[in-house]
Amino acid sequence: MPVLAPTRLYLEDLTIGQRFTAAPATVSADDIRTFAAQFDPQPFHTDSAAAVTSFFGGLVASGWHTAALTMRMLVEALPFAGGTIGTRAELRWPAPVHPADTLTMEAEVMDARPSARRPGYGIVRLQVQTRNQAGTLVMEMTTVVMVERRGASAEIKSV
Amino acid sequence: MPVLAPTRLYLEDLTIGQRFTAAPATVSADDIRTFAAQFDPQPFHTDSAAAVTSFFGGLVASGWHTAALTMRMLVEALPFAGGTIGTRAELRWPAPVHPADTLTMEAEVMDARPSARRPGYGIVRLQVQTRNQAGTLVMEMTTVVMVERRGASAEIKSV
Repeated sequence: MPVLAPTRLYLEDLTIGQRFTAAPATVSADDIRTFAAQFDPQPFHTDSAAAVTSFFGGLVASGWHTAALTMRMLVEALPFAGGTIGTRAELRWPAPVHPADTLTMEAEVMDARPSARRPGYGIVRLQVQTRNQAGTLVMEMTTVVMVERRGASAEIKSV
Repeated sequence: MPVLAPTRLYLEDLTIGQRFTAAPATVSADDIRTFAAQFDPQPFHTDSAAAVTSFFGGLVASGWHTAALTMRMLVEALPFAGGTIGTRAELRWPAPVHPADTLTMEAEVMDARPSARRPGYGIVRLQVQTRNQAGTLVMEMTTVVMVERRGASAEIKSV
């Protein structure tokens, strides 16, 4: 079972195979258009009428909007004491997100080990799946993040 | 030389090794905090004072904010007739983005070929580099997108 809303986490709190989730996020047509106007101004993301004759046949969220919403759920699901510091990510978007979709996120710990290069930090690899209310996978991401080790704060702050 | 602001593009307009760029984007502290409050609420992205004692030593942009700004520049640089439809992306963030940084984007065509599965579309692989005003690489992305083929619109719209 995925864990909901744990307390402040450190590397030492993770085990491989552990899964975490967060409260779902619903996306409105306004949310989709507002994000896209700023960051992905293409008709199928900004204009409900023009979107009808597009590849998608209607308004859909920018993949970067889905990624950003997934990050919010990830931060909520895994509140690392020193933050979640992303170093890399691989994403794919197998299905679009439509207005009024409700997204859920589940993150699984694939690897968690001390950093060889940065004392006080660990390297964690997460597989993150974002699904809509029908259970359809709309985004899948593998990401590598740096997180604090327990009791290492003083050491880190002086670097 | 990278090309600035071409007209509407189709698969057939691309050649491997071609490079495209867009107008630079400057990021303010307010932009950073506003994006992060909505999508990546961590102190080093939302709170200039708290950020001082964080890993980064000061306020930095969410990596997803950098990705979203890069997408805007990519859409501007490569205005494909049927849009830029992302299917996957690999990202890394080798250096942080700070308030008042001015970002530039350069996209290089790594591969461009007709889609075997979707008539009327092509599959394009782009390598995208985002740099700050000092020339430091802040994000590198390889992304695979679908774009329209020239003269294929009627066929596409009837699918």
